[in-house]
Amino acid sequence: MDKIKETLHQLFDDFQNFEDKGQKATYIPELAHIDEDLFGVSLSCLDGMQISLGDATTPFSLQSISKVLSLVLAYNILGEDLWKRVDVEPSGDTFNSLILLELEMGIPRNPFINAGAIVVADILISHLKNPEEVFLKFIQELAQDTSIQYDLNIFHSEKSVAYRNYSLINLMKSFGNIHNDIDKVMDLYFMMCSVSITCQQLSKAFLFFANDGTHPLTQQQILIPSRNRRINAIMQLCGFYDEAGEFAYRVGLPGKSGVGGGIIAIHPGLYAVTVFSPKLNKKGNSTKGMAFLERLTSELNNSIF
Amino acid sequence: MDKIKETLHQLFDDFQNFEDKGQKATYIPELAHIDEDLFGVSLSCLDGMQISLGDATTPFSLQSISKVLSLVLAYNILGEDLWKRVDVEPSGDTFNSLILLELEMGIPRNPFINAGAIVVADILISHLKNPEEVFLKFIQELAQDTSIQYDLNIFHSEKSVAYRNYSLINLMKSFGNIHNDIDKVMDLYFMMCSVSITCQQLSKAFLFFANDGTHPLTQQQILIPSRNRRINAIMQLCGFYDEAGEFAYRVGLPGKSGVGGGIIAIHPGLYAVTVFSPKLNKKGNSTKGMAFLERLTSELNNSIF
Amino acid sequence: MDKIKETLHQLFDDFQNFEDKGQKATYIPELAHIDEDLFGVSLSCLDGMQISLGDATTPFSLQSISKVLSLVLAYNILGEDLWKRVDVEPSGDTFNSLILLELEMGIPRNPFINAGAIVVADILISHLKNPEEVFLKFIQELAQDTSIQYDLNIFHSEKSVAYRNYSLINLMKSFGNIHNDIDKVMDLYFMMCSVSITCQQLSKAFLFFANDGTHPLTQQQILIPSRNRRINAIMQLCGFYDEAGEFAYRVGLPGKSGVGGGIIAIHPGLYAVTVFSPKLNKKGNSTKGMAFLERLTSELNNSIF
Amino acid sequence: MDKIKETLHQLFDDFQNFEDKGQKATYIPELAHIDEDLFGVSLSCLDGMQISLGDATTPFSLQSISKVLSLVLAYNILGEDLWKRVDVEPSGDTFNSLILLELEMGIPRNPFINAGAIVVADILISHLKNPEEVFLKFIQELAQDTSIQYDLNIFHSEKSVAYRNYSLINLMKSFGNIHNDIDKVMDLYFMMCSVSITCQQLSKAFLFFANDGTHPLTQQQILIPSRNRRINAIMQLCGFYDEAGEFAYRVGLPGKSGVGGGIIAIHPGLYAVTVFSPKLNKKGNSTKGMAFLERLTSELNNSIF
Repeated sequence: MDKIKETLHQLFDDFQNFEDKGQKATYIPELAHIDEDLFGVSLSCLDGMQISLGDATTPFSLQSISKVLSLVLAYNILGEDLWKRVDVEPSGDTFNSLILLELEMGIPRNPFINAGAIVVADILISHLKNPEEVFLKFIQELAQDTSIQYDLNIFHSEKSVAYRNYSLINLMKSFGNIHNDIDKVMDLYFMMCSVSITCQQLSKAFLFFANDGTHPLTQQQILIPSRNRRINAIMQLCGFYDEAGEFAYRVGLPGKSGVGGGIIAIHPGLYAVTVFSPKLNKKGNSTKGMAFLERLTSELNNSIF
Repeated sequence: MDKIKETLHQLFDDFQNFEDKGQKATYIPELAHIDEDLFGVSLSCLDGMQISLGDATTPFSLQSISKVLSLVLAYNILGEDLWKRVDVEPSGDTFNSLILLELEMGIPRNPFINAGAIVVADILISHLKNPEEVFLKFIQELAQDTSIQYDLNIFHSEKSVAYRNYSLINLMKSFGNIHNDIDKVMDLYFMMCSVSITCQQLSKAFLFFANDGTHPLTQQQILIPSRNRRINAIMQLCGFYDEAGEFAYRVGLPGKSGVGGGIIAIHPGLYAVTVFSPKLNKKGNSTKGMAFLERLTSELNNSIF
Repeated sequence: MDKIKETLHQLFDDFQNFEDKGQKATYIPELAHIDEDLFGVSLSCLDGMQISLGDATTPFSLQSISKVLSLVLAYNILGEDLWKRVDVEPSGDTFNSLILLELEMGIPRNPFINAGAIVVADILISHLKNPEEVFLKFIQELAQDTSIQYDLNIFHSEKSVAYRNYSLINLMKSFGNIHNDIDKVMDLYFMMCSVSITCQQLSKAFLFFANDGTHPLTQQQILIPSRNRRINAIMQLCGFYDEAGEFAYRVGLPGKSGVGGGIIAIHPGLYAVTVFSPKLNKKGNSTKGMAFLERLTSELNNSIF
Repeated sequence: MDKIKETLHQLFDDFQNFEDKGQKATYIPELAHIDEDLFGVSLSCLDGMQISLGDATTPFSLQSISKVLSLVLAYNILGEDLWKRVDVEPSGDTFNSLILLELEMGIPRNPFINAGAIVVADILISHLKNPEEVFLKFIQELAQDTSIQYDLNIFHSEKSVAYRNYSLINLMKSFGNIHNDIDKVMDLYFMMCSVSITCQQLSKAFLFFANDGTHPLTQQQILIPSRNRRINAIMQLCGFYDEAGEFAYRVGLPGKSGVGGGIIAIHPGLYAVTVFSPKLNKKGNSTKGMAFLERLTSELNNSIF
C-alpha cells in the first residue's frame, strides 16, 4: 500500500510537466467550457483507504462511464437474457458507427458503444418505474454520497446535438431492438451521461468491481461474482472504443473512459483508480489519463496480465 | 493445487458426456482425418507440476496457436517497431476477412488474425537466417522436448487450398507491408502452423506467459515482463477471432485457439492450461475446449477478473 | 405508332397469365390494403396520343417515383450547385442503407436513394414558401389534371413506421447536410411520396423527359435540354435501387420505380410509359412491371442502346 | 455528318489549350514512359467514314477497354449462363476493391471491374484452345488490321506489380468462382490488357456496337441485337469504375475507359468515337478524354438521353 501511495505521488509530480497534445471535447457545447488544465487522481483500496491527488474533488461529466453502471442494473434485471439484445464482442469501430449495426441487424456489438448503452437504457425503461431516480440513487449509494446529481445543462446541451445517436436508435428501432418511445429512451440515456461526479466519488463507487461484486465498505453484494467477472471482462475488451486493444496493451487493466475526461480502471483484488483530465486523443480518451495509468501499472509492475 | 487437481479430474469426468454440436475442420483436407472423439487436457503449474488427462499425449496440429510463438520471436527482434507493421486492436471480423485490411491500407488489426501472422512471418524471414529451424528449436526448448516436429502432410495440404491466405498476402504486398517473396513467406507461415504437438508439450511450452516471461523450469527469460504482459493482453483481446469477447466473458483468461482443436489459456501467476478436442464451433474454436475452460475457471472461481 | 399500339395490346393479353412470384409491399401498413391483382399500362407519345390498358385509371401510391419530380424542382433552383449536396453515382446498395452514407460523410450517392431524396426535400424547404403546394401543383400541371392529390392515410401510415428514414436524416444532419428541422423535412418527403396517381396521369406527366425537357402538349419548358438529359442519365443509372443494372440490361430505358407498384420508363424522342402492378420482387420493384417493359422493348426492338 | 466533322475539328482546336490536371498512370512501370502530351481522336460512322485528328495513329495500351471485347467472346460462348459467374450491377467501388467481392461471395459486381474481367478470362480459358490467339485475331478482324499486337513489355511490367489482382483472383478462387490455374488466368488477363492499338483502329473495331451488333463494314454479325444492347447497357452503367454516373451524367453515352489513357464511346445508330490522352484523374479515367467527350455530345446535342 505504501508502495502504491509513494508511486502515485511521484507520478503525479512527474505529470505536472506532461506535454498534452489532446483536445477538449467540443461536440457537446457545454463540455467545452471546462478548464482544460484540470487534473485529478483518486485510488481506492479494498480496505477503504483512498489516495486522492490534484483536482480529485472537482466534479466532471460522467458521460460514457455511466454505461458500466446502467449495464449493472440491466444485467441484474434480465440476467443472461440481456445478451439477446446486445453482444459482448469488441466492435473494432468508433463509438458511434452505424456500419456494423446495420450489418448485424440492429444488435449492438457490446454495451459500451453508444448503440449498446441505448439498448440498456431501453431495458431500464421497460422494467423500472422511475429509472432516472433509480440510477441516480444507485450511484449515490455506491459512492456513499448523496450530493451527486444530474447536470441538466449538460443534458440539454448533449441532447441538442445528438443527431448521430438519434440515427442509431432509429436504426435499432427499425430492426425491432428498441421497445419504448425513442425520445423517452434518449432522455434517460442523456441523463445518465450527464451525472456530475468527482474522482473521489467515482473510485469509491467502482470499488465493488475489484471485490468480486461486493462493496467492501458496505458489504452489500452489487453483483454476484460470476457477473462481476463478466463485466470486468467486457470493460477489458470494449471499454475504450476502438482503442481497447491499445489500453489493454499499455495499461493491462479493465476500465472505461468518458468524453468528459474521466477514466476508471479496476485491478481485481486490489483497487479502483480514477483519473480525470479533459484533453482527449482522437479516439475520445483522455490523453493524460491514459498515459498516467500506463505509467502507474508499469511502475507498480501490476497489470492483470 | 489439490483443489485444481481435484476439479480437473471431476470436470474431465463430467465432460465424457458432453454433447458436442461442433464440426471437425474440413477446409484443410489433411485435418479431416483426425479422430473427432479425442479429448485431452493438460495443466502446468509454475512449480513444474503437470496434470494431464485423456488424450494429452496425442499430437494435434498447432495451427493458429503458432501465431503466439512467432509473435514472441518477432517482438524480441523488432521491439516496439513491430507495431508499425501490425496493430493491437480486436478485429471484430472473422480470422481471414479482407475488408478491414483494405480499409486500413494493409495494416492488419492484430498479430493473431491470419494477415497479422503473415506479416510476422515476413519479419522473421527478413531477420533470421533459418527461420523455420529457429522456430522449431524455440518450441522444442520451451517444451523441453526435441521430438516436436513439423508435419509436412499438413503443410502441403494447407498450402494447396490456401487461396484466401494468398489473397491476404497479395493485398498486403500491394500496400507495401510484405517485404519478402510471397511464396517464401507463405511457406514459413504454413510450416509454423503445421507443428505437431501434444497437450502436455504445449502447456509446458506456454508456461513462461504465466511467469512474467521467464520459463519457470529453466529460469530462461523468454520475454521481459512488460512485453510478456502485453502479449497476454493481446491474447485476451484477440485470441479467439471474432469470439474473443465471448471467451473473455465466459472464461476470463488470455488464450489462443487453433483450428486443429487446441486451446491454450494462461492464468498469470498460476498456470498454463491446454485443452484439445477437434470439433469446432462456427467461429473455428473447439466447442468442448471452450466449454471445459469456462467450467474450469467457474469452479475454481479464478478468472483474472 | 400502330406497331407500338399493336404490340402493347398483344403483350397486355399475354401478361394476363403472368405467374407473379412477387409480394405486395407490407412495411407501410396502408399500402398492404391494395388489390394485388391490379394491372395497368399507359404509354404516351410525343404527339399526345395515349394508349391505356387495364387498370390505367386506378390510382396508386407514387412513392419513390416522386423523387424524380422533386429533383427537377431542386435542380431548377440550385443548378449545378445541387451536386455539392448529393452525388450522381449508382449506390450498389439497397435504397435505405446507411453504410455508404457514413463512409461518405453524409453525402448521398444519388438523388434516387432515400437519403438523396431527403436532401432534395431539405433543399425545397430552404427555397420555397409552400413546397407541398408547389410540388402538388407541379404534378397537376404536368399531368394536366387537378384531381391528383396527396393521400393522407398513406402519409401517416408511412411516417409511423419510418424509423430507418429518420435514422438516415439524423445521420446526414450530424454531417451538416440537412439544413432544416428534421420533422419538417421528413413531412415534406412523406407527403411527396404519398401522391395518389394513375398510369394515365403519370405517363402524361413524365412525357417532357422524352422531349428534351419541353412538355409536348403545353410547349412549356420544364428543364433545359442539357439538364433533361442529365436527369434521364441518372434515372438510367440509379432508378432501380440495387437493380439498376438489371433494368438497364433487360429493358434498356431510363426509368424509375416505386414500392406502390408503379414503374415509369422513358424512351427519349419517342414516349413515356407507365406500368402498375403491386407485387414486388425482393429489390422492391414491380415484378410484372419489370417483365412487361422487358418484353415491350424487346418486341419493339427499341431500347436506347 | 458535316456537322460532326466540323464540331470535332473545332473542339480539337479548343482542346489544344486544355489545362490538364491529370497524372499519367505510374503503377504499371512501363506505362509511365509514354509521352503525356499525346492527344488523339478518331470517330467512325456507320457508313465507314472516319474522322481522325492529332495522334490518332499512335499506339497506346488498350488496358481495361479490352474487358469489353473479352466479354463479347465469353457472352457468345456461355450465353445467359455467363451471368451466374458475374453480375451486371454498378459496383459503387473502385475498380480493384475487394470489399464487395468478399461480401458477395466471390461473384464480381460486373464484368468491367478487374474481378469481373478475370472471371471472363477464366471462362475463355475453359472453352477456347488458344484464347490468346483467338482474342488477338478477334481484334484484328474487328479493326481490319493485322498489325495490332500484344505488347510484351507492358504484359511483363503489369504482371510484375499486380499484387492486388492476384489478391482478387485468390479470393474468387477461394469462393470457387475461378476454375483454372491462377497463373494461367492472370497471364491471359494481362495479355489482353497489353494490346497496343491506335484511336483509328479502336473506333473501327467498336463500330459494331453502334450497329446492333453487326460490323457495318464487313456485314459480319458479332453479337445478336439483344446481346449488343445489353453490353451497351453494361458499358453505360459500369464502364467508368466508380465514375460511371459522372460519365453518364456528363457525356450520356455508353463507353469504356482504360488506364492507358484511351476512352471509347458509342452512340447507338450513329458512331463510335475514341479519344486518347494519357493523363488520368483520380478515378483512373483520362481527364482530357472525359472533357472532350462531354463537350462533343453537348455541342452535337446528342447524348442517348
